[in-house]
This record gives sequence, C-alpha cells and structure tokens, in this order.
Amino acid sequence: MDFEKYKGRSVLITGGLGFIGSNLAHRLAEIGDVDLTIIDSLADMQGGNLRNLKGIEDRVKLTVADMGDSWVINHLVGGMDYIFNLAGSVSHIDSMKLPHNDLHYNCTAHLSLLEACRMFNPHVKIVFTSTRQVYGKPAYLPVDERHRIQPMDVNGINKHATEMYHLLYDRAYGLRTVVLRLTNTYGDRQQLNHNRQGFISWFIRQAINGETIELFGEGRQRRDLNYVDDVVDALLLAGLSEEAEGEIFNLGHPQNVSLAEIASTLISLTGRGTMAGVPFPPERQLTDIGNCYCSFAKIERVLGWRPKTDLREGLQRTIDFYERNREHYWNVDEKDSLSESYPSFKQIA
Amino acid sequence: MDFEKYKGRSVLITGGLGFIGSNLAHRLAEIGDVDLTIIDSLADMQGGNLRNLKGIEDRVKLTVADMGDSWVINHLVGGMDYIFNLAGSVSHIDSMKLPHNDLHYNCTAHLSLLEACRMFNPHVKIVFTSTRQVYGKPAYLPVDERHRIQPMDVNGINKHATEMYHLLYDRAYGLRTVVLRLTNTYGDRQQLNHNRQGFISWFIRQAINGETIELFGEGRQRRDLNYVDDVVDALLLAGLSEEAEGEIFNLGHPQNVSLAEIASTLISLTGRGTMAGVPFPPERQLTDIGNCYCSFAKIERVLGWRPKTDLREGLQRTIDFYERNREHYWNVDEKDSLSESYPSFKQIA
Repeated sequence: MDFEKYKGRSVLITGGLGFIGSNLAHRLAEIGDVDLTIIDSLADMQGGNLRNLKGIEDRVKLTVADMGDSWVINHLVGGMDYIFNLAGSVSHIDSMKLPHNDLHYNCTAHLSLLEACRMFNPHVKIVFTSTRQVYGKPAYLPVDERHRIQPMDVNGINKHATEMYHLLYDRAYGLRTVVLRLTNTYGDRQQLNHNRQGFISWFIRQAINGETIELFGEGRQRRDLNYVDDVVDALLLAGLSEEAEGEIFNLGHPQNVSLAEIASTLISLTGRGTMAGVPFPPERQLTDIGNCYCSFAKIERVLGWRPKTDLREGLQRTIDFYERNREHYWNVDEKDSLSESYPSFKQIA
Repeated sequence: MDFEKYKGRSVLITGGLGFIGSNLAHRLAEIGDVDLTIIDSLADMQGGNLRNLKGIEDRVKLTVADMGDSWVINHLVGGMDYIFNLAGSVSHIDSMKLPHNDLHYNCTAHLSLLEACRMFNPHVKIVFTSTRQVYGKPAYLPVDERHRIQPMDVNGINKHATEMYHLLYDRAYGLRTVVLRLTNTYGDRQQLNHNRQGFISWFIRQAINGETIELFGEGRQRRDLNYVDDVVDALLLAGLSEEAEGEIFNLGHPQNVSLAEIASTLISLTGRGTMAGVPFPPERQLTDIGNCYCSFAKIERVLGWRPKTDLREGLQRTIDFYERNREHYWNVDEKDSLSESYPSFKQIA
C-alpha cells in the first residue's frame, strides 16, 4: 500500500484524540512529512485522551474545540487535502439516555464541518466513519452494503443521517466523500473507563483485571472484529482512491466468533479472569441484534483492502498495550452516572 | 369513517397553525367535543399563520413556542390521547441553504417531543407526517414503501431520521407511532408567500395573478397530488387504527399528471395566466427527481383510505378559497432573501 502519497499533504483528523483517530495520527506521523491537524472536543466519556498522542505531540497541531462550532471549524478546513472525519459519539446506550447529545455530536457537528468545507474547501476529500449499527438486526449474513437500514437506537439513526449528508454534499457540491461502515474495532488507545462503547474493550479490561466476564444468553452471539491497524489501512486507502468517492463500504473480518469464544481467548491470553453466562435482561433482549458480521467484499474488490490481523494476534497486542499503559486508560475517576441508569446494559456488541 | 371516536378525547397538533395542521384542527372542531391544543413556533416563512384558525379560535388552546424547548413540550403532552405531529420545515431549498435550521425543526424538536412523551405520556398515539422526498429519484413507479431511501436534500435526510426516531420509540418504549409519507398536498390555508415549499402553491398563485407559470424542461415531470381534506382523512384514520402502529404508509393519488397539465388546468379554471417552458437550470437538473408518484396500496389495504377528491375539483375549491382570502396568504412583505440566493430554484416538486 503506497501511503507515501500522504507525504507533503495536509490532513485534518476530527476526533483525533480518540481511539481510531489517534492510531491514524500515529500512522501518518510514521509516514512522515504530513502536515497533521487534529480537532477534538474531549467531550466527557467519549474516549478522547491526550495521552493518545504520546510520542507524536510535536508533529500534530491540536485544537480542542467542538467541531459543531462554525467559528472554529470554518478556520480549520482551508487548505486541507484530506479530512478523516472520525468525531462522534459511539455509545448506543448513551444515545438512548441522552438523544439530543448524540444528535449534536453525530449530526449537528458534521453539518458544521460539511458546510465549512462547502464554503472554504469545496473539493476536499473526506473519509467518514460510520457503523454497521445502521443495519439493525441482520436480515441475512454476512451483511453487505445493500442490506436494509433499520437502526435499533438513536445512535444508529443519527450516524445514518450523517452518512447521507456526506454523500449528498458529494453529489450536490463536489466534495469528495467516502463512508466506511465499521464493525467492532479493538486495539491500542481505546478508552477502558466505562462499558458503554462496545463489549470488546470491557472484556479486555475484565480479563486483565482477573474479573468475571458476564455473557448474556451464554454469549452465543457471533461477531467479527477488526484490529485498529487494519481499520487505519482502510481509512488511508479510502483517502487515496478516486473510485471510492460517493461510495459506502463495509469493513468486516473473515473470522466470525462468538462472544464466548472471544472471552475464552482473552482469559487464555491473559492467564486471568473467568466467564459466566447470565440471563438476558429483557430490555437488552429487545434491542439485541443476534448474530452480526459484515461482508467486506466490496472494499476488497474496489480498494484491495482485507484485514491482515488474526483475532488472537490482535488481542495479544492489545493486551500487551494495556498491561503497559493501564493507568492511562482506566485508572480514572469516571463518575459513571449513566451506567447506574442502565445497570443491565453491560455488554454491547 | 367513524371519526366520532375523537369526541371527548384530547388532541395535540404540532405545527397546527400551518397548512395541513390547521385543516386538521378545523375538522376536529367540526367533529365537536374535542379537547384541542396546538403548538406552533410561527417560525419565519414556514407557513404558520394565525389566520388559519379563523372561525375556531374559541375551540383551540394555542401555545406559540418552539417544540424543541423541553420546558414547553414537557408540560403539553401529559393527558393527550392523540398527537398529530405535523411540525417541521418543509422546504427542500431552505434545507440546503440553512441545513442547521432544518435539522433543528425536523430532528431536534422531534426528539424533544418524543422524550417528553416517553417521560410523561408513554402510551400516547402519535401520527407523524413525513414526505415521499425520502425516496429521492424513483427507481420504479409508483413508489411503494419498500423503495430504497436516498434523499436528494438535507430535508429528506432529516425527515427520514425523524421517521426512524418515531418507530424506535414505538419499539423501545411503547409509544404508539405511525408514519405517513405525504406526496404533494394542496388546498386551503397553504402559504403562498414564497415559492420554496413545493410547486403547486406557486402555480396556483401565478394563475390567479394572471402571471406566466414557468415550466422547467417543458413540465413533463409527472406527479400525484392530494387535496388537503383527503390527507386529513388519512391522519384521522391512522390515529384510530391499532394496526397502523409501528408502520409507514405512503399517501398517493390514482391520477398522475404532468406539471404542464396541472398548469394548464389552473389556467383554464382561473381563466387567467399563461405557461412557458424554460430550460432546466443545471443545478436543478442535478437534484431533479424526474417522474415521481406513489403507491397508496398499503394504506388502502390496512386503513381503507383512498383519495376522494379529483384533481380538477380540488384545484377549483382551492382557487375559490384563495380568491376569497388572498390578502391573508400572499399580501405579506416577505423579505425573500433566500430565493435571491437560489434564483433558479423556483419550482420544487
């Protein structure tokens, strides 16, 4: 993959202090000679973490501000060659508890970015990260891009609206936009403070802590998971491809595994922790999507992307990272009032 | 149709000073003994008009406020049996010019309403009016509810998100919601101040004024149109039907006619006006949806609804209304700055 093409170019990463955004920043910093800017609001409990730029602080211009604020974003987009638009709220649970918050971070802020580009950088390339959650409960497996849209939560509805904004601004105004629908992603630099941003980070924390991983309904639900480095590859490929413009691509992984298998692998790799089946809480059953994994045939065909990291290998690397860095990722007083309101929403896949 | 069932019930109409909302209010007032409340923000140029309640002022409790304000809407929903949720911005053109505005009126405000109901009236029945615009350019005709979703403007994207909010709150929280996707609607009490809310009101005004109706591309695009009384029937039927809950229904009309035919009918009925083909402005061509008319087979099957008003007859009634009331519908200084920005967006279907 010829990522040398990013040398000498200007790149903006929105949400760049977060999990995937900061891994992308590290990769671009490694490529070298990239003029790199990050905007991140460090919104409460979203996963933004200044620690995530450790080692590349001197190669990044950082603005801590809300992307929804036009006074800020209007001044940032000018001259950018690429925008990786990773800002947003990712918690399905929080989106049900505080839907207006989710709407702000997942729609309003993105309209501000797109309007800024329309006015001040109308031919910029934007890669937007969405989620397979827009599909809701799969009607067939693996889920491809033609699958019907039926989100099970406010987060999925809002992410879908913003996908459509991106494609609309491509068609109507000449921006060049690509949408990637991510499946579960894991790896270094993900927040492990709370359990409302997907099950995988929480499983990892519990295994490292030697705790009991609770599995709803015996953990038979099957998922696919991508190691963050592979997701970064997909972002960089989408940024360089003209053929990708105006298109939506699923990511996915050829291995689909049950939650129980994932827990078991983590227990074996860490040598700690246990697992236990617990009954499905009724309100979780209502929004449970059952098995869900995605076809990545389209992105493989068009961009030549496929995951390079085996699940076990990726989990090992992730464990190594957190063993070295745990104090920066979960030794934080989190004032976790939301999870008190949703005590049963422990495991979101 | 047994609309007597509304007697003795409490009904809230959001956007009730607008075109369709006020016609619904008049109908409910005729039924009699309905405890009727309206909330309307009278937002600039949206079509809300105090004049629309002429004759029933003493039978309506009116709150002029933004539904997005939780302090207001939280106090209005309690005890309501039915909410007809007609508030919103309907201009596709304005939504491209001021997308944040459209997002506020078409998403944020509706989340406030739904949250209010979840907290203070969790089993209320809500009928939400959406638009066939969510389908974008038809892939086949007539468009039914299974047609793919691909809005051509911010308005369509936001309306679709709010459809999904309604259905989500039905599934997740027990609210009872129905979505109607309206096609072009015409009739008494529609604003005729500006031309950004659909072509039909503007054609009517131009014919009555004896002006030249401009037709892009010879006006060959075919549409279906509903007279507002028929739309009010559909709303009232949806309100009473349990079978409709959690469902989406298209409205439509068995007559599909070209814009040129509509213009010609109006010229013949008024005895005034002319028509002229003009070239399609390039940016309009880009977002033009070609022919578009909808299948109403589903609502006919489930609710027994079908339009009762022939197009010519409905247009005659509409003309009669505006001949009597023109000073209340277009003799207003409109400060029409938006249409200066989109001089070519004259005719939106």
